[in-house]
Amino acid sequence: MLNLDFHPSGRHFLQIPGPSPVPDRILRAMSLPTIDHRGPEFGALGLELLGKVKKVFKTDNPVIIYPASGTGAWEAALANTLSPGDEVLMFETGHFATLWHRMATRLGLAPEFIGLPGYEGWRHGVQADLIEARLREDTGHRLKAVCVVHNETSTGVTSDIAAVRRAIDAAGHPALLLVDTISGLASADYRHDEWGVDVTISGSQKGLMLPPGISFNAVSDKAIEASRHNAMPKSFWAWDEILEANRNGYWPYTPSTNLLYGLNESLDMLLEEGLEHVLARHQRWAAGVRTAVEAWGLEIQCQDPAVYSPVLTGVVMPEGTDADAVRKIIYERFDLSLGTGLGKAKGKMFRIGHLGDCNDLTLIATLGGCEAGMKLAGVPLKGSGVAAALDYFAGQPLEAAH
Amino acid sequence: MLNLDFHPSGRHFLQIPGPSPVPDRILRAMSLPTIDHRGPEFGALGLELLGKVKKVFKTDNPVIIYPASGTGAWEAALANTLSPGDEVLMFETGHFATLWHRMATRLGLAPEFIGLPGYEGWRHGVQADLIEARLREDTGHRLKAVCVVHNETSTGVTSDIAAVRRAIDAAGHPALLLVDTISGLASADYRHDEWGVDVTISGSQKGLMLPPGISFNAVSDKAIEASRHNAMPKSFWAWDEILEANRNGYWPYTPSTNLLYGLNESLDMLLEEGLEHVLARHQRWAAGVRTAVEAWGLEIQCQDPAVYSPVLTGVVMPEGTDADAVRKIIYERFDLSLGTGLGKAKGKMFRIGHLGDCNDLTLIATLGGCEAGMKLAGVPLKGSGVAAALDYFAGQPLEAAH
Amino acid sequence: MLNLDFHPSGRHFLQIPGPSPVPDRILRAMSLPTIDHRGPEFGALGLELLGKVKKVFKTDNPVIIYPASGTGAWEAALANTLSPGDEVLMFETGHFATLWHRMATRLGLAPEFIGLPGYEGWRHGVQADLIEARLREDTGHRLKAVCVVHNETSTGVTSDIAAVRRAIDAAGHPALLLVDTISGLASADYRHDEWGVDVTISGSQKGLMLPPGISFNAVSDKAIEASRHNAMPKSFWAWDEILEANRNGYWPYTPSTNLLYGLNESLDMLLEEGLEHVLARHQRWAAGVRTAVEAWGLEIQCQDPAVYSPVLTGVVMPEGTDADAVRKIIYERFDLSLGTGLGKAKGKMFRIGHLGDCNDLTLIATLGGCEAGMKLAGVPLKGSGVAAALDYFAGQPLEAAH
Amino acid sequence: MLNLDFHPSGRHFLQIPGPSPVPDRILRAMSLPTIDHRGPEFGALGLELLGKVKKVFKTDNPVIIYPASGTGAWEAALANTLSPGDEVLMFETGHFATLWHRMATRLGLAPEFIGLPGYEGWRHGVQADLIEARLREDTGHRLKAVCVVHNETSTGVTSDIAAVRRAIDAAGHPALLLVDTISGLASADYRHDEWGVDVTISGSQKGLMLPPGISFNAVSDKAIEASRHNAMPKSFWAWDEILEANRNGYWPYTPSTNLLYGLNESLDMLLEEGLEHVLARHQRWAAGVRTAVEAWGLEIQCQDPAVYSPVLTGVVMPEGTDADAVRKIIYERFDLSLGTGLGKAKGKMFRIGHLGDCNDLTLIATLGGCEAGMKLAGVPLKGSGVAAALDYFAGQPLEAAH
Repeated sequence: MLNLDFHPSGRHFLQIPGPSPVPDRILRAMSLPTIDHRGPEFGALGLELLGKVKKVFKTDNPVIIYPASGTGAWEAALANTLSPGDEVLMFETGHFATLWHRMATRLGLAPEFIGLPGYEGWRHGVQADLIEARLREDTGHRLKAVCVVHNETSTGVTSDIAAVRRAIDAAGHPALLLVDTISGLASADYRHDEWGVDVTISGSQKGLMLPPGISFNAVSDKAIEASRHNAMPKSFWAWDEILEANRNGYWPYTPSTNLLYGLNESLDMLLEEGLEHVLARHQRWAAGVRTAVEAWGLEIQCQDPAVYSPVLTGVVMPEGTDADAVRKIIYERFDLSLGTGLGKAKGKMFRIGHLGDCNDLTLIATLGGCEAGMKLAGVPLKGSGVAAALDYFAGQPLEAAH
Repeated sequence: MLNLDFHPSGRHFLQIPGPSPVPDRILRAMSLPTIDHRGPEFGALGLELLGKVKKVFKTDNPVIIYPASGTGAWEAALANTLSPGDEVLMFETGHFATLWHRMATRLGLAPEFIGLPGYEGWRHGVQADLIEARLREDTGHRLKAVCVVHNETSTGVTSDIAAVRRAIDAAGHPALLLVDTISGLASADYRHDEWGVDVTISGSQKGLMLPPGISFNAVSDKAIEASRHNAMPKSFWAWDEILEANRNGYWPYTPSTNLLYGLNESLDMLLEEGLEHVLARHQRWAAGVRTAVEAWGLEIQCQDPAVYSPVLTGVVMPEGTDADAVRKIIYERFDLSLGTGLGKAKGKMFRIGHLGDCNDLTLIATLGGCEAGMKLAGVPLKGSGVAAALDYFAGQPLEAAH
Repeated sequence: MLNLDFHPSGRHFLQIPGPSPVPDRILRAMSLPTIDHRGPEFGALGLELLGKVKKVFKTDNPVIIYPASGTGAWEAALANTLSPGDEVLMFETGHFATLWHRMATRLGLAPEFIGLPGYEGWRHGVQADLIEARLREDTGHRLKAVCVVHNETSTGVTSDIAAVRRAIDAAGHPALLLVDTISGLASADYRHDEWGVDVTISGSQKGLMLPPGISFNAVSDKAIEASRHNAMPKSFWAWDEILEANRNGYWPYTPSTNLLYGLNESLDMLLEEGLEHVLARHQRWAAGVRTAVEAWGLEIQCQDPAVYSPVLTGVVMPEGTDADAVRKIIYERFDLSLGTGLGKAKGKMFRIGHLGDCNDLTLIATLGGCEAGMKLAGVPLKGSGVAAALDYFAGQPLEAAH
Repeated sequence: MLNLDFHPSGRHFLQIPGPSPVPDRILRAMSLPTIDHRGPEFGALGLELLGKVKKVFKTDNPVIIYPASGTGAWEAALANTLSPGDEVLMFETGHFATLWHRMATRLGLAPEFIGLPGYEGWRHGVQADLIEARLREDTGHRLKAVCVVHNETSTGVTSDIAAVRRAIDAAGHPALLLVDTISGLASADYRHDEWGVDVTISGSQKGLMLPPGISFNAVSDKAIEASRHNAMPKSFWAWDEILEANRNGYWPYTPSTNLLYGLNESLDMLLEEGLEHVLARHQRWAAGVRTAVEAWGLEIQCQDPAVYSPVLTGVVMPEGTDADAVRKIIYERFDLSLGTGLGKAKGKMFRIGHLGDCNDLTLIATLGGCEAGMKLAGVPLKGSGVAAALDYFAGQPLEAAH
């Protein structure tokens, strides 16, 4: 029998950019007994949830909740709005943008992948001007959708979605705007309605602080209209029956009841604290972590300060240092998990997650583990990042109490 | 803020045919901290799980685990093995067979739905001779798959899958055999390899006693071969990348970590008790419940004793009695949830689930709530079903201790 | 390593008269992180608790909470009000009255134990007239206290405390009135102030539905005054320092923080439902259980219907039947725990607890287990108790919803 | 209804010297259903526990477990071995020694309190030579017991108990040796048998990592013999009936079942890791914390390096700084609880707990919170304690894996 209590004395520090540490309050909610998903109490829960979740996406339109993990919500967005052979414009910001592009290809779409040359795209955000230029060329409107990642989890870059919207509008192009904010929602500022997004894709295991297992499509009227006519075979992901059943708080098939208990608790926590306070808290953590990286004399993966992510920070290792070897030392000596470099970034950097159920001291511990581990690995450091971050935090007031 | 503690004093009796009551032992396992799904401990967990789960399907072939609910696994089975326009033979045994047929249509397949005439199909199992006859006619082998439901949750009928296999073989037909045992696995006898099933579909929230949220495809070599060439667009459901990543205990995208903790615990519980004891326990419960129905002088939905389900029993109400009105009285007065009549059976019957984390006395309580509620609703009863079931149980030995 | 998951499939039925089954809601509350018992949040919790707990004792006076089990609260009542050598009048109602008497002796008091002759006292309640007669004889007021058990857990008799108060008053005697309602509180009607009780002793693991571990002394002004001058050595149990610290919500030494979380939840549950509904619920259960015992043709241990306990019912076995052998069969075959016969009642009867986190169907299951087990043990039964109780319950409305 | 979830985002850092943070593994064990404390499974649990707990006290003699908090175990030790008016020798090492002395007085004993002059006793350990000298004077053997605190929680001093034993022996004095290691057990080296202790007192909420609520008396044959003849009234605390019932794994009255589940888990955790590794871990933490205090240029409360506590460290504030004002800033800004200065140390120092469910990074976070908070409070610091401790930890290997 496998012992699932993997860790030694004390709590493991799970500082990867998701799954994020789940608050005990949410774990307790998830341990409530499973109920009949066709009974009256489930309907009340469903209506409550479907109402509250809109506030986090900042939308008045419906939000679909899938009993499937985030990758499923990517597929759902494509399967509901596009048809086989459709051309879509995707922007390469990193590993997850690349995986989504790969999915579009596998689903029989014709994605066009644009971006900055070489490795540059992995250190900057979406370039709205490139999108605008490409759309202007597409006078025949063969491009049916623009797909971008809001918070690129593999690099720590949070792109400017409003700018992408403006680019599409400036080009006068009818393409749908599909945005992945799986790791951005509830940690980075996000505004589905205001930014004119047609489908927003998100998941449970990041800013919502749930275990993985449920995911989201927030949809515009235009997206719903597209879903009525598109030719992609779809059933599990189809919005129509879900929207119909959701009117009474139900789902057409068995929902993830216990994760929905957790979602309900998560939404209460976020809305009680106030979304603006939640976002400010993540910004403070990100700034503290960057202060440490600077003190160490290391490079941040994101090279454009305007799009630093409040969710995670990529820390670039000096030439010749294998970032994964450093991570391994930190993991084994300090029981601290950091994110690995993915795809083109493999071995070049590691990622510090600063999201979810954390506080300033959790991050001091995390930076401590990074600092000591890098020293043990022989990485030359300019100064103490922990001490610098501590000074930064001490200078910041807490968010106003709620 | 919604109070999720819906129920009054004492424990709610969740006796629907799934989701089944989740043992506390599993809830505790699910509350373990989420770990890095790319870390070394996750890989160990994955390999352990993927090995143990095969024993429950009775297969030496791979079992795919999806971070999605059971309906998704239906779609996965179709999307991996068939191509748009493919003809498939489906057998109408009840509501879930009907929903799967509907899904096949929505996915662009050409399903043919055969069955007994009128309402008869909803009171009997799959008729293997009808399948054999139809396949013999299909000399051009246009039918690419035979799709049947093992345990039809809407009626309480457990069909003879070995007979379906023999029928296909007798017809000398190359069609794949796809079987839904979402509600049968780990409660009713099931043998993926021995019965020559190509894809077995199952879910977490029935005999595995987990909350809903993960689901399964057990696959044959022939099914895997089909998945290499079929033309259905697929990405999330695609077996290839999952099988590849599973070799080291990982998944290509974020798995439902905490539900996998629960699955690991569930498998330990089932294998410690011994699958044969688990199945015997469900058979004893089913026999006890049928004893009660007989004592009440009511009809069982399933009219063929050879295929009575060990998982649930449909209880037919007398003409003129609305089964849902009876269910409502039982729910409100006794805090007991029963399954509603679905589809063609709506209002005609209710369903008693006898699966998962139960024991003999749980079922005595359940039968007590049914009996008292039916009396309150004015349903004429011949005698006391509770007393009869109690006598039945008292005459049965427990399974040999493990 | 010992596996603490002792039970087979399904939930164990813990129908002993305490510890009672703990609601999941309370277990969840108890799993909250331990906090600094000298910090500001603890003080707030303490004040909240100390206020709410008074409502359950129906007193405006202080209630002391000990980080010790109920037996400790017995000792506390004696140690705070009496001096070595003091004479006290105790009434034999059963095993717990006898144990309390034994404790008084061990503590150096001079208890006088009166009661009905032979085994009669174990089948009736406190006889207030005997107490009055004895107090009238005590013209020198040598008896310093009258000690009675409200709900005698060993027999299922709930004595009339108001009558005892009247007896003391009628005799014009200044003795203190000390009452043990360890198993009565929050299940049977109890009124500390109205009945003029000086010290009420109670515990956590019965009607309050907590695990064992904390206990109570509700005190009158007269009792507090006595505690200022009595000569019994006392420190841990001493009220003075606790009352002083309680003013700000603290304790002089480390309290049982996590059990206090549970108590807070328990009090919320009881007060939300309404104490009068809670008491009515226990009366309904007791009446249902007695209906079953009558249908079986067996005797109830309590021979005076005026003092039947709403908390538990003692079921007398026919001559020649060893009650513990019957209990063993029920336990092993049906995973149902019943209370053993204690002291003079050993082997003669078993006790069915109907308290705490139960509902009507839990008791139907319990009666079912008893009935089937007695049949297996060869106990001759007149008729079906389960069926009778079911009819009784079906005829009773639920308490008005809150 | 009081919200018991007191803390903002992330986990509260509970770094007081007890109650210590409870591992989730123990909280899960404590959430198991309460069972019949007179049933067969309880007896098995009791025997298992009573066996394993001896290993932690390093004794072959019985260990009594009380369903009461640690202060109760103090009283139990006195009440079982001494008689009213008995003279006992107690040594003033700090606040808890003082409270124990106060208890002895309240219980009618005649304690003599010796120690170093002025505040010195609060900054050093027990002086065995003073004890020896006093015992030599007591030629009439009027002193019946020597009472000392092993780990003085109010100061961070761990006295040399073996030296006290040698002192008593050197004086040829028959006094019993009573030792409080409430906060030392399972964090600091302790040897009941080897050191010839007669009664060892301990509690659950420190090194055993449980919530408060159960406590211990480990006893010698000599102590048991004394308990047979002493004249203190005793019942709840009396060893005789407990030792008798313990033979079969039971207790004479209701034990704290759910805390015993937790104890069983705690003992498994400690014994699996190996006590010597547990102790080494606490020594490493203590050394790291002292490294930080030194880097800050502050004084440690304990002035004798030979008796530095591995459990907690007292940090002395500069003259004129109110330590409690500093603690308040740290608590409010960083959600970190530190121990207050108690008794004579009030306002002069704060205490950092480094015990229980911690790891190196937890302590880095704690030191970070202290450092930033002291800066915010205007405490002049010589250098960065966090950075120094981090360097210290990085230079220390982990204990050998088990």
